[in-house]
Amino acid sequence: MTSHDAKRPICIIGLGLIGGSLLRDLAAAGQTVYGYSRPNSGTRSAIKEGFDISDHLDNVLIRANEDRALLVLAVPMAAVDEILDRVVELAPQCGITDVVSVKSPVYRSIRARGLESRYVGGHPMAGTENSGWKASTTGLFVRAAWVITYDFAMEADTAGRSPDQEWVDLFVDVIGMVTTVRAEAVPALVTNHDDAVARISHLPHIIAESLSVVGDQGGLLAQSLAAGSFKDATRVAGTRPELVEAMCESNAPALVGALDDFIAHLQDARAALDTENPDISELAEAGHRARRRLEARSGARKESVSPVKISSRPVLRLRPGGPDWVRQLRQTEDIGGRIEIY
Amino acid sequence: MTSHDAKRPICIIGLGLIGGSLLRDLAAAGQTVYGYSRPNSGTRSAIKEGFDISDHLDNVLIRANEDRALLVLAVPMAAVDEILDRVVELAPQCGITDVVSVKSPVYRSIRARGLESRYVGGHPMAGTENSGWKASTTGLFVRAAWVITYDFAMEADTAGRSPDQEWVDLFVDVIGMVTTVRAEAVPALVTNHDDAVARISHLPHIIAESLSVVGDQGGLLAQSLAAGSFKDATRVAGTRPELVEAMCESNAPALVGALDDFIAHLQDARAALDTENPDISELAEAGHRARRRLEARSGARKESVSPVKISSRPVLRLRPGGPDWVRQLRQTEDIGGRIEIY
Repeated sequence: MTSHDAKRPICIIGLGLIGGSLLRDLAAAGQTVYGYSRPNSGTRSAIKEGFDISDHLDNVLIRANEDRALLVLAVPMAAVDEILDRVVELAPQCGITDVVSVKSPVYRSIRARGLESRYVGGHPMAGTENSGWKASTTGLFVRAAWVITYDFAMEADTAGRSPDQEWVDLFVDVIGMVTTVRAEAVPALVTNHDDAVARISHLPHIIAESLSVVGDQGGLLAQSLAAGSFKDATRVAGTRPELVEAMCESNAPALVGALDDFIAHLQDARAALDTENPDISELAEAGHRARRRLEARSGARKESVSPVKISSRPVLRLRPGGPDWVRQLRQTEDIGGRIEIY
Repeated sequence: MTSHDAKRPICIIGLGLIGGSLLRDLAAAGQTVYGYSRPNSGTRSAIKEGFDISDHLDNVLIRANEDRALLVLAVPMAAVDEILDRVVELAPQCGITDVVSVKSPVYRSIRARGLESRYVGGHPMAGTENSGWKASTTGLFVRAAWVITYDFAMEADTAGRSPDQEWVDLFVDVIGMVTTVRAEAVPALVTNHDDAVARISHLPHIIAESLSVVGDQGGLLAQSLAAGSFKDATRVAGTRPELVEAMCESNAPALVGALDDFIAHLQDARAALDTENPDISELAEAGHRARRRLEARSGARKESVSPVKISSRPVLRLRPGGPDWVRQLRQTEDIGGRIEIY
């Protein structure tokens, strides 16, 4: 995919489903990778499996600083500030990325500490309704979109400057890491990312929680009859509620907008049903067309028996720091494309 | 499961996903079964596969009448009246069941023709987002709930009478058919069934259509980022829109009620998000508990490697026509239980 490999060591802070799966993939690819995790049974399992893990945060950050490692924050949003304070103190040489599912509050925390030139945000669009190290697995990110934010470069570009070379190098290394785990690097500005995931991730979570409750209130007959359509639409309500709360609450403004759009469609459907001659053909046809387009677009991203995996996302081959490269990132974002470094 | 086998031939009118899958299973079980389907490529495939199919409705009904076959109406709601008119004329000796997903309008059509004593309604809670003979498969109904209506018996019981023996025999034969295809016969009155499926099937369809549209309107970045939670919640928007329209529109009153419940939960969530300190813990925890209960209840219905398959639905062993049997059906319905005949 790219001739660039992330040569600096990678240090992952937090080893849940995402951090743990990233560690497994990077280690399997021969990348120097180690991490920190709170002392718990998952951490003990990870150490037993032979991974280079410590439950002593300060020691891990001191080591990362000596290595000039790339730090990956894979902790819940609520822990980000506390970790960043330790990073400021103990790991001033490290570049920073993260995998937190909402980017605005993370970027606020980064700005509050003046860390913008050392930060490239990330968010892998992968996961299951399970969580923790024990749910981690290799191959979780294959052909998943992995959002990479570039607000620092955008702001520099708007001001007629080039971003610092330190930042450009970090950007390249983060994309190298993403490519190593076979994800697809999709550039997006922080607020655009948050608007998009409100719509296609956080809204489905709110729907799943609400539909679960509505089904439960339907009594035992309704529950006995619940089949595929109900089970699929409520699957992600199996996610630990504190994780759902964290992502929805930290993206509340964007999520309120997405909810308003969605509720308006439901109210239109209600009005179309509550008449002499119910007619939901408009919604049913529009929904069907939209779903078919989604299937057509993502079809090429499905597993196939072919040894050559084809992505359906348009690709931009980018030379970071080259002429017009920030404008190219912006254009790639607009079409939901992916970037490769050459 | 039961010592009773449906000995009368079974004649299926309409060979889409449900009718076709039923035909495959019954034929595989050695049951005499034949059917009618409109002339199309699916019908030609079915005949080529050696099934006893004709595209001449009148001839099929005349044969069914001679055989005193059990007629299974597996056509869309819109075709039910037309088929029933032919049944009245050509198949006056046949008992009738159906697999239509909303029971009130079918029962109105049955009543309009005075066919109540010859009718036991049915609805298998099984299917995929695909349709037509080519989507039909054996084993589709294994451990699925198959609703059996018993309003005729309930009405007789309320009036202090026993239902006609002809109806009781038909009820037994319909359950025999359901048992043969390894589904679980769940008794429900027509309006209770329609309320339940509005909540756990038709509401999820409206949600899937609306969410597909909202995702589509999010632009190319949102669509590129759509992953598991969005894809699962919109899967059934892949269903042919005319099928979604037919079931939702024909169950409009119950579906409006379910939509009102659901919209109220979304509006609560919106209010909880649109504040200084967003807090959706109540919804997230209630939704998670409800989903976990669903998983716990349906867990035992999952495929397992054990040769003994266990249902999680409570079972009533019923002697149709025996003392108190209609009251027992009502009690079984209240707990979403299944019936076995002994």
